[in-house]
Amino acid sequence: MPVTAQFARAYRITFNALTARSPLITRVPLPATSVRRLYSTDRLAENMTDSNLSIDRAALDSLVLKRFFYAQSFSIYNGVAGLYDFGPTGAALQQNLISLWRQHFVIEEDMLEVDCSIMTPAEVLKTSGHVEKFADWMCKDTKDGSVMRADHLVEAVLEARLEGDILARKMAGVSISSEAGPSAAAKPDAKKNKKKGGPIAATKLENSVIEEFKFILAQIDNYDGQGLADLITKYDIRNPDTGNPVTAPAMFNLMFESSIGPSGNLKGYLRPETAQGQFVNFSRLLEFNNQKMPFASAMVGRSFRNEIAPRQGLLRVREFTMAEVEHYVDPENKDHPRFSEVAHIELPLLPSQVQLEGKSTPIMMRIGDAVASGTVDNQTLGYFLARIYLYLMAVGIKHELLRFRQHLPNEMAHYATDCWDAEIKTSHGWIECVGCADRSAYDLTKHATYTKEKLCVRESYPEPLVTVKLVCETNSKVFGPKLKRAAKPVEEYLKLLPETDLTAIQSKLSKDGKATVVLSGTAADGEYEITPDMVTIETRTITEHVREYTPNVIEPSFGIGRILYSLLEHSFNVRAGDEQRSFFSFKPAVAPFKCLVLPLSGHASFAKPLQDVARRLRAGGVPARVDDAASASIGRRYARNDELGTPFAITVDFQTADDGTVTLRERDTTKQIRASTDEIVELVKCLVHGSTTWDNVLSKHPLVNTSSSDNMD
Amino acid sequence: MPVTAQFARAYRITFNALTARSPLITRVPLPATSVRRLYSTDRLAENMTDSNLSIDRAALDSLVLKRFFYAQSFSIYNGVAGLYDFGPTGAALQQNLISLWRQHFVIEEDMLEVDCSIMTPAEVLKTSGHVEKFADWMCKDTKDGSVMRADHLVEAVLEARLEGDILARKMAGVSISSEAGPSAAAKPDAKKNKKKGGPIAATKLENSVIEEFKFILAQIDNYDGQGLADLITKYDIRNPDTGNPVTAPAMFNLMFESSIGPSGNLKGYLRPETAQGQFVNFSRLLEFNNQKMPFASAMVGRSFRNEIAPRQGLLRVREFTMAEVEHYVDPENKDHPRFSEVAHIELPLLPSQVQLEGKSTPIMMRIGDAVASGTVDNQTLGYFLARIYLYLMAVGIKHELLRFRQHLPNEMAHYATDCWDAEIKTSHGWIECVGCADRSAYDLTKHATYTKEKLCVRESYPEPLVTVKLVCETNSKVFGPKLKRAAKPVEEYLKLLPETDLTAIQSKLSKDGKATVVLSGTAADGEYEITPDMVTIETRTITEHVREYTPNVIEPSFGIGRILYSLLEHSFNVRAGDEQRSFFSFKPAVAPFKCLVLPLSGHASFAKPLQDVARRLRAGGVPARVDDAASASIGRRYARNDELGTPFAITVDFQTADDGTVTLRERDTTKQIRASTDEIVELVKCLVHGSTTWDNVLSKHPLVNTSSSDNMD
Repeated sequence: MPVTAQFARAYRITFNALTARSPLITRVPLPATSVRRLYSTDRLAENMTDSNLSIDRAALDSLVLKRFFYAQSFSIYNGVAGLYDFGPTGAALQQNLISLWRQHFVIEEDMLEVDCSIMTPAEVLKTSGHVEKFADWMCKDTKDGSVMRADHLVEAVLEARLEGDILARKMAGVSISSEAGPSAAAKPDAKKNKKKGGPIAATKLENSVIEEFKFILAQIDNYDGQGLADLITKYDIRNPDTGNPVTAPAMFNLMFESSIGPSGNLKGYLRPETAQGQFVNFSRLLEFNNQKMPFASAMVGRSFRNEIAPRQGLLRVREFTMAEVEHYVDPENKDHPRFSEVAHIELPLLPSQVQLEGKSTPIMMRIGDAVASGTVDNQTLGYFLARIYLYLMAVGIKHELLRFRQHLPNEMAHYATDCWDAEIKTSHGWIECVGCADRSAYDLTKHATYTKEKLCVRESYPEPLVTVKLVCETNSKVFGPKLKRAAKPVEEYLKLLPETDLTAIQSKLSKDGKATVVLSGTAADGEYEITPDMVTIETRTITEHVREYTPNVIEPSFGIGRILYSLLEHSFNVRAGDEQRSFFSFKPAVAPFKCLVLPLSGHASFAKPLQDVARRLRAGGVPARVDDAASASIGRRYARNDELGTPFAITVDFQTADDGTVTLRERDTTKQIRASTDEIVELVKCLVHGSTTWDNVLSKHPLVNTSSSDNMD
Repeated sequence: MPVTAQFARAYRITFNALTARSPLITRVPLPATSVRRLYSTDRLAENMTDSNLSIDRAALDSLVLKRFFYAQSFSIYNGVAGLYDFGPTGAALQQNLISLWRQHFVIEEDMLEVDCSIMTPAEVLKTSGHVEKFADWMCKDTKDGSVMRADHLVEAVLEARLEGDILARKMAGVSISSEAGPSAAAKPDAKKNKKKGGPIAATKLENSVIEEFKFILAQIDNYDGQGLADLITKYDIRNPDTGNPVTAPAMFNLMFESSIGPSGNLKGYLRPETAQGQFVNFSRLLEFNNQKMPFASAMVGRSFRNEIAPRQGLLRVREFTMAEVEHYVDPENKDHPRFSEVAHIELPLLPSQVQLEGKSTPIMMRIGDAVASGTVDNQTLGYFLARIYLYLMAVGIKHELLRFRQHLPNEMAHYATDCWDAEIKTSHGWIECVGCADRSAYDLTKHATYTKEKLCVRESYPEPLVTVKLVCETNSKVFGPKLKRAAKPVEEYLKLLPETDLTAIQSKLSKDGKATVVLSGTAADGEYEITPDMVTIETRTITEHVREYTPNVIEPSFGIGRILYSLLEHSFNVRAGDEQRSFFSFKPAVAPFKCLVLPLSGHASFAKPLQDVARRLRAGGVPARVDDAASASIGRRYARNDELGTPFAITVDFQTADDGTVTLRERDTTKQIRASTDEIVELVKCLVHGSTTWDNVLSKHPLVNTSSSDNMD
């Protein structure tokens, strides 16, 4: 296949605009394009943080563990870093996020959901480039052998030195000018790395050194192994825990490796993303879609990355659930048939141009305008940004803590033509939770070239395409015998030659009676003489009925664990005036348990109506949880189920036996109403399925006096 | 912990009743307990097959591939044995099986669903016994190095020889007596292995040899490595493909191995079952359940087994989705609170006693009676058998092709106290699709002992338990100084000593003024002298308020892929009189697509109402598929969507523009009705959610004349 303009664009190494603008460019090692960046969009957007959320993270973490949302895996075996188990609450929350995702994307968009193997033969991931390049740089302590990520090491040590400088200047009473002074704001969440950077020594730095450090930290993701090695040497960076020197950074592939079958000869990796499984099935999927374009495949499943340094709970883990869409589109027409449905939606966009101007406040822009103005590359990308936005709003992410950040030119995978991340703000900073990239034809072309299987679309032209073209045909009787083994490569070369070159050969043949063809990079490199009897070069009228092209791929890729963690932070609340009572204000659609069923007390007469209510809810598809622990007061039981984020509670009390009524309590308002069991069960079903709201219920039912029932004593 | 009676029972090596009864016991190597059996319930129940189903498997396989239910993974890379990708139809079918499973088990039974890590550190799987014993025996061809499962090899070669004998006798015109003749019926589906056993040589065997072979084949799962090695030597078994000798069988662990983290020092395995992740979280789960027993945890997820010889499509694969329940129960009371709800249900049971009598016809028995008579060990096991039955009926497994087979005493995992498999009959024979085992306290005890973390239940007695007991207390002032380092082990030994032994020591001390204690298997083995000043042995009244016990675990374990494959076979149909037209008669609840939406033809006016109908269905949670390919006739489009098993089809035609009506077609009957779009959309929702039936719809709406619409031309 000749290199098309579109393909060349995907391979283009984009000039680093940010670096080019920096006045410091000559003073520090110039960052090369990072290795991992080329193949991964999985980056914590830490350095984009501009302020911290006011959340009591210790209280949240403790509640997460206490109510078993998640916990480190194998904790009775002292746990394994980067592996987490979801408990009943977390697993249900995750499952609900996935169900809504399926409804929102797969069903409503009629995507072809597939479920492919996790274990992947090395050949596939060699072709996709992961074996060579899906890696981070790693250093070893030269004495104790402990291992660290090279970029994290440099980052931590330089940050510690900057902090030491602040300390030294404070102690010396030097005022800190905004121009030359050290900037803790350059890395506002630097404090979480403090421990790793070693003890802070109060050592004043030269102003020029401070500038260097600041520049390096802002660019830390861009250094390759040699770049990091140079920094380590230049600044004598050592393992802060031991003071020992470290080895030069070596590449550490982030895929878990295994071996398939009993012979041990077939190397396999656990997939680092679900995308490749979809790409290798492209032809079957196109066939399944009756050859119609555009269309999308989708997959929800586990992926694996053997992180050198997992951290921050669910935010950088070794095993995670992701949901990915691969939308296949004609590279010459990236319009989306349903774009008009979303064009009016306003999104908080942070385009690369705005970032390059040093700003970090998103701009509210209608997605229709963003595509029209070229801020977002095409309709399909824009359509998905809007759909991602609607999904995140539907699950309960806070609007004001969400932004869509465009990748900087130097930040994109080399094959990507445009890429936007949905970033959600948490107490850890802005977290990349959904990536939405235009992967161009990169993957399909790679797999097709390697396997020699066509992964392309054949479309009939509405009218046959007639072109007039200079073509070269060989005279097999002379051509073959003269060129022997080189005949085939030379013929292929001639067939692919641009028209101008062919014209040159044509005129050479008629002028000199011969022409020379030079092959290189083939199995038959060399110079070959062509004579007029061997070829016919002439203008032909060619009628094409079918157009063949490799689709481009627009890929929205969701990190379910990161969305889940962000949602926990955004839903975490404490009762006004009683900070001990925390609760999660999950929407009913995502809440792990929809309805709590409980008796007023341990009185024996409550058991039967209680089980009856629970059974009716469950049979109606409403996950209900009974809390009949007689030892806990009703208030305490309400409180501990508020901690699970259960939105509704039905209470059986003494009146139930008399008149068959029960009470219904809502979590956020703690208000209660009373009605017949039948009516309350139906109401809960409607509330959970979203066909009514609590406000609506309150407008039709009088409040019950609950002055004492929410008392925890 | 002292070895309790219950625990001892779990460890008991059950005497092999079948072997003991065989008159051939002295003539062939006695099978030892197989290795894999101890840890795996994943066995194809091939040798239980008594007849084949009449199904055109080639037609089924071709439809499965054509409509992308599943296909071998990475097929453009020539595929990997034992790995499969589910396409849009298969993935949706699988997802629906899982959704129904969640509704049926997790929600209706209020189970605690968790989602744990696949990557598991070696330590955990060493403790559970998998590292040592989750293995098959493997032979290598001594010349070409090809690898085969030892039991499969022996099986294939002996079967080929038996077939050769039949051939020889036929050629010799010898009549085959039922007593001494070779029995193809001993292995009715032997033919599928024919190729593997090598070419059939017409060689007559001695009658005694035939008996030996038959006996060995019936017992093939029971041979260990040495047993298989002996068979290979004795019968000169070679690789049938090459005629070369094979190596002695070596153990091949079936877990995929990897390494966690950058240091390479932490070995990990991909989990072979989801159970261990649940067990190690037992304490958190009990806490989450407010300490109440009994309760169950559950998990749906991927597991991995690096099979030596994957085969038969989805039936023996290397990566599979399973759904497992771990129900924790008091070992002294295995009653189930909801047993009365299922006691009346009749199940097709095949108890071990019936199998030992050589019969294979299940007995229809009410589960209440089966538990009362001791056929099924306890109520909880019986409750789950009934619930499994209801689930399999609900998804569409045919009642007459289902049986519950009890494990034979020699077939159970050594820790299991009772085990039943739900086996589904397919054209491959009876397939174990759900295992339901009482795992006793095995796993929790193992993990607790190794980690020294308590994995047990503490329950207050309703009344304090008062016991009178002989106890031994040490006098620390004398005991320690005298015994020094041995003091602690000797003290522990004395504390755990049964009352009779303690009485003996007491009388020795008073008689001889000393007694000797012998320790073995401790860190301080040896003989130690005890004198009366060192200990006080006397009767005490002990009041216990809390009972501490390790729960037993009842485990229903579902192979989703196997159920899915069985369902494909049970749902596969051809139209009477037109065998080219096949379809899947899936129930709406499991069907991959619920409703097809299509225009009568490619007429432009159909586009808008078509999209309108599709959008309304999808927004209502009904996965709808549009088939508007103008090139295919309406009949052809009905037919190809019947192949997907889509139960309903809404057709937009010329009348739609006039009066807003559309037609609704049902797949199995191919009958159609007509009504307004609003009404039809609502009807489809009701049909899909199960709130009405097609018969009911037909009783209220007149049929539309469809004489031509189901014509494929």
